[in-house]
Amino acid sequence: MKKEFAVVGLGRFGGSICKTLSDQGMEVLAIDTDEEKVNEYASVASHAVVGDSTDEGVLKSLGIRNFDHVIVAIGDNIQASILTTLILKELGVKKITVKAQNDYHAKVLSKIGANFIVHPERDMGRRIANSMISNSVLDYLELSDEHSIVELVASKKMAGNTLIDLDIRAKYGINIVAIKRSQDIIVSPQASESIKQGDILIVIGADVNINRFENKFADM
Amino acid sequence: MKKEFAVVGLGRFGGSICKTLSDQGMEVLAIDTDEEKVNEYASVASHAVVGDSTDEGVLKSLGIRNFDHVIVAIGDNIQASILTTLILKELGVKKITVKAQNDYHAKVLSKIGANFIVHPERDMGRRIANSMISNSVLDYLELSDEHSIVELVASKKMAGNTLIDLDIRAKYGINIVAIKRSQDIIVSPQASESIKQGDILIVIGADVNINRFENKFADM
Ligand SMILES: Nc1ncnc2c1ncn2[C@@H]1O[C@H](COP(=O)(O)OP(=O)(O)OP(=O)(O)O)[C@@H](O)[C@H]1O
Ligand SMILES: Nc1ncnc2c1ncn2[C@@H]1O[C@H](COP(=O)(O)OP(=O)(O)OP(=O)(O)O)[C@@H](O)[C@H]1O
Ligand SMILES: [Ca+2]
Ligand SMILES: [Ca+2]
Ligand SMILES: [Ca+2]
Ligand SMILES: [Ca+2]
Repeated sequence: MKKEFAVVGLGRFGGSICKTLSDQGMEVLAIDTDEEKVNEYASVASHAVVGDSTDEGVLKSLGIRNFDHVIVAIGDNIQASILTTLILKELGVKKITVKAQNDYHAKVLSKIGANFIVHPERDMGRRIANSMISNSVLDYLELSDEHSIVELVASKKMAGNTLIDLDIRAKYGINIVAIKRSQDIIVSPQASESIKQGDILIVIGADVNINRFENKFADM
Repeated sequence: MKKEFAVVGLGRFGGSICKTLSDQGMEVLAIDTDEEKVNEYASVASHAVVGDSTDEGVLKSLGIRNFDHVIVAIGDNIQASILTTLILKELGVKKITVKAQNDYHAKVLSKIGANFIVHPERDMGRRIANSMISNSVLDYLELSDEHSIVELVASKKMAGNTLIDLDIRAKYGINIVAIKRSQDIIVSPQASESIKQGDILIVIGADVNINRFENKFADM
């Protein structure tokens, strides 16, 4: 059975969720007070309606309680975001994801029972800032406060060395889990694999160790 | 030598970049037309000034050309974002990262020479939507259009099996690169390691194969 989603608020964040879910074949109801936005998503979502989510009658008449997951992606109007979440909760919606504007907003949302609270701009700001500091880190996945998987651009100093030459595991306590080489992905590269300039190394380990490795081989 | 950054626009995205860079010990100049925002970041950034970045004189007097990397995080005012980028380019700033509102905006920015163009709300919307579809995918790092590293919650069906029992590599062509078990991270787990309920598996492989594995072991 297909899961049914509803997205309230078709800004850039809500709009992207709506499009991604629809592209993946999910049923999506899109709701916004702004008719232009609704028209824009009419061909993307399964249904798109003009409506104010702070109006309980509107949500009821859309049968919102029958949806598996409702996403509240209202931005600047924090009151509308909170009120919408309260109504969804009262109507018995099981999974509610809400975009928070700041920490206070997030606290209120958590107290009134939002199931997932997200901070898209803040989180993306962190990711991008972290990759700007380093000359070689392109992207990363945080595994814990102290461990990550990072995409590192191979430096000129690394190029030409095999993984045995570099002896990364023993010397730095980190592992290369894959190498991106133009269009190819080499998963679990052999110890005899030699690094080429422009390779992107997918490295797993403790952040301090990854930093140590990165700095050791940084080109000047 | 410390890198010097300037952030234009202290919304949630620009503000988060400013804070992350500052937390990491970078020199950051924060600029916004809104005095309240500037006051908010006065204690976060190295310097925070009220100023309109579409005014060439303002940027010149701040010595903007001497910064290593300037981030334009102006949102709704697309014209101001474009004009600011043009001026930064003319003044000879080497690295310019700009937040885009939509694809048209991104095209213009790319034509006028922005070095990095980012879509924080869109990208985060995609990530979050993808994790909402699956019951087990928590987060992921895209390696290519077809390969990813994903954090998968181990299902009840998996629990109690060792990695040899599951024979994941041969049967699904994917690898478990790490296991998150409460506070621990087990990197490159042994074949004899047995999966516990609640483990988070860090899996690398082709998206189709990861999906196949996920669906095969999905609890009902
Ligand atoms: N009560 C409401 N009911 C339905 N839609 C609403 C309501 N209030 C606001 N919206 C819609 O939510 C959408 C997102 O709001 P807004 O643009 O303020 O957020 P934002 O955080 O700047 O968005 P983004 O950063 O994702 O582009 C808008 O299209 C707005 O019309
Ligand atoms: N010409 C300008 N010079 C300096 N700052 C500006 C200029 N124009 C806009 N700003 C500032 O940019 C910041 C971000 O703009 P805005 O709030 O429209 O973006 P947003 O995309 O909704 O932000 P976010 O989603 O990151 O919260 C605001 O604080 C605004 O005052
Ligand atoms: Ca906004
Ligand atoms: Ca935004
Ligand atoms: Ca980390
Ligand atoms: Ca992918």
